[in-house]
Amino acid sequence: MKIVDLIGLAQKLFDDIRELSSDGVGVTRDSYGNGESAAADYLRLFAEKEGLNYEVDRAANLIFSLPDDDAQLPAVWVGSHMDSVPQGGNFDGLAGIIAGLLCLVAQKQGGQRSGTPLRVIAFRGEESAWFGKAYMGSGAIFGKLSPEDLELKHRTSGKSLANCMKEVGADTAAIASREPLFDKAKAKAYLELHIEQGPIMVARKIPLGVVPGIRGNVRHNRITCVGEAGHSGAVPRWLRHDAMFAVADLITRLDEHWRVLLERGVDLVVTTGIVGTDPSEHSISRIPGTVYFSFEARSKSHDTLEGYYQLMRTECASISRERGVNFEFDRRLESSPATMDKEICDKLAQSCNRMGIPYETVPSGAGHDASLFANAGIPSGMLFIRNENGSHNPNEAMEIEDFMLGVRVLADTIGHL
Amino acid sequence: MKIVDLIGLAQKLFDDIRELSSDGVGVTRDSYGNGESAAADYLRLFAEKEGLNYEVDRAANLIFSLPDDDAQLPAVWVGSHMDSVPQGGNFDGLAGIIAGLLCLVAQKQGGQRSGTPLRVIAFRGEESAWFGKAYMGSGAIFGKLSPEDLELKHRTSGKSLANCMKEVGADTAAIASREPLFDKAKAKAYLELHIEQGPIMVARKIPLGVVPGIRGNVRHNRITCVGEAGHSGAVPRWLRHDAMFAVADLITRLDEHWRVLLERGVDLVVTTGIVGTDPSEHSISRIPGTVYFSFEARSKSHDTLEGYYQLMRTECASISRERGVNFEFDRRLESSPATMDKEICDKLAQSCNRMGIPYETVPSGAGHDASLFANAGIPSGMLFIRNENGSHNPNEAMEIEDFMLGVRVLADTIGHL
Repeated sequence: MKIVDLIGLAQKLFDDIRELSSDGVGVTRDSYGNGESAAADYLRLFAEKEGLNYEVDRAANLIFSLPDDDAQLPAVWVGSHMDSVPQGGNFDGLAGIIAGLLCLVAQKQGGQRSGTPLRVIAFRGEESAWFGKAYMGSGAIFGKLSPEDLELKHRTSGKSLANCMKEVGADTAAIASREPLFDKAKAKAYLELHIEQGPIMVARKIPLGVVPGIRGNVRHNRITCVGEAGHSGAVPRWLRHDAMFAVADLITRLDEHWRVLLERGVDLVVTTGIVGTDPSEHSISRIPGTVYFSFEARSKSHDTLEGYYQLMRTECASISRERGVNFEFDRRLESSPATMDKEICDKLAQSCNRMGIPYETVPSGAGHDASLFANAGIPSGMLFIRNENGSHNPNEAMEIEDFMLGVRVLADTIGHL
Repeated sequence: MKIVDLIGLAQKLFDDIRELSSDGVGVTRDSYGNGESAAADYLRLFAEKEGLNYEVDRAANLIFSLPDDDAQLPAVWVGSHMDSVPQGGNFDGLAGIIAGLLCLVAQKQGGQRSGTPLRVIAFRGEESAWFGKAYMGSGAIFGKLSPEDLELKHRTSGKSLANCMKEVGADTAAIASREPLFDKAKAKAYLELHIEQGPIMVARKIPLGVVPGIRGNVRHNRITCVGEAGHSGAVPRWLRHDAMFAVADLITRLDEHWRVLLERGVDLVVTTGIVGTDPSEHSISRIPGTVYFSFEARSKSHDTLEGYYQLMRTECASISRERGVNFEFDRRLESSPATMDKEICDKLAQSCNRMGIPYETVPSGAGHDASLFANAGIPSGMLFIRNENGSHNPNEAMEIEDFMLGVRVLADTIGHL
């Protein structure tokens, strides 16, 4: 069975899982929730039908392998995540899992096994959109979730991460005690195929990208700007402590600093994805007394992240003095930047060359489960697939032909590891 | 019966109505909703107990008078509104109604009638917080509510203003056809006592203020900034169309223009009371594609309102070009500035002087039902009571002693009209 002949199967998997997690606008596969579990159930049935082994690890991630897999041997792991952001796209995460499964199916149906066994891992809980924390599924198996993380609350239900993980079968006691749940000795390498989430590959007209490194980030899920509410008609400007004007001032300053840093060649993106006055008390005719907002900076450089974070805190202090408001910060969260393994990057590139598929080196602005493997010392590599309209939205547009090129390169690289 | 002896009754009225409309934080008396109706029911029972006449006008406002009131005679009307903003304060609106009722009670108990009959009107629906439109109750009786206004939706229930008005007994057909429901020939004057909603009188240590005029406003309940959502890690700054950064930029420019205009001596306040990314799709790691916000400018001057509004539209156009976003505007709403009657202002001042009560002339930044009467050609006047911490919040702090000074001046002025 050749990979190219699996295009129909690939399309069916994408279509079926899109349908079962559709929300009418995009797909919603909530971390440790119904949408994600529906995808997991579907993948388990699929594995049974294809005669693949599957097991559930202690963090409730799914692991797929060939029926005669010797669990004692180190393997090449291929993985990505099942969950999506609310009203997200179908390919972010799912593409990497389907790619791995197609490689397994090809080995099974073709009878040709790779020298190093292949295991496919489908992570839960990669998206920060639900609990304000990313890489929960891969973090859990490397002992990277703290008891504080486990107390994070779901964005709508308010249930704790620990409870949601427990409901899908995770061993939250082991996770809270930071017990390593993944045996690094059993991992020769980790590979992840993922749609590109930026606009670079479409602009450059290249179907595949080899990822040299992944940006880290520093975040606050919620910063609260506390000013003073008041009647909008009756308080003159010099006596106002308008929390919204203060936050607008801050965002404008952050934007200005960002622009200047980019001119100096620094790698940085800055986002305030969630901003709002308080719906329980806001009105057109009331000076906002409280504004909530999130903060995120991403960079390949630790120093840039730290420097920009301090700049943000300094501007908050300055605005507090000037406008008589106060900024309250929740816990600072961070993910380290990660470097992909040079040798694996070379092998991915060699596979592309062997097959005559154009590729370029494309750094990853977004974070991925691969970061956790790389930072745990496991040689890791990532392959990007061209994709239009970014990700985290329903308009993701990956061509299935580009995807199949990626799967071919993935299968070939696995054979050379 | 002297006014000063009614202090216990005043306190009881404030306390009872605070309690029946408490929401645990402040008071919530929603326009044409449960909170407002509870206050109305209480006032009706109070009138019955005190032997006062009451009727309900065709816009569901309450009118109180002495039992032997000759409805054919022109009267001095004293009024204010029963509703509050969500989690608002107890005195905004209610103080003016209680003041009028105390004057009626004093006339009834003392047997001393004013030369011109006194009628007290308790308006429904003055606050714009509920339907995005102010002066609904007083607007309705002057034929100022348009069919479009009647289709405005309640902020939480989504029910139309027409339906909510109908539910409390208003004749919405007459209101929609702009039939005048108030006979101006029956109004010799309109007086309104209200807490000051700004910080001026506390700062100047004066208990009473005579109001020479009321600011008008121009508003949008909802402006939508449409940018492009995307993954926060993967889209570089030059390819972003971040709706939140665009709105922050706009607010910062509005603030800067405002500051400069104030330096030129212009009367203006500017507020964006409601701002937010879209909860159905926002996340920390998603560039906001849509931001909703309200806009309000208030001024004593028509020209300033128009000029500032055009400046806002120009800045939106400029930011649209610079950031690749789009601003979509809902219906522009406006209230005219109003001038209080010179003769009535003089009489209020003379009453203060007669009683040796310190007062100053204090313009009203906030809008009031009195605007509608003034702009309908009825000689109108307003009396402000010192109040700390502004209004539209639970920390309003009017001293009952200051209030009683105001009621004495009001009663005295009524006697001289």
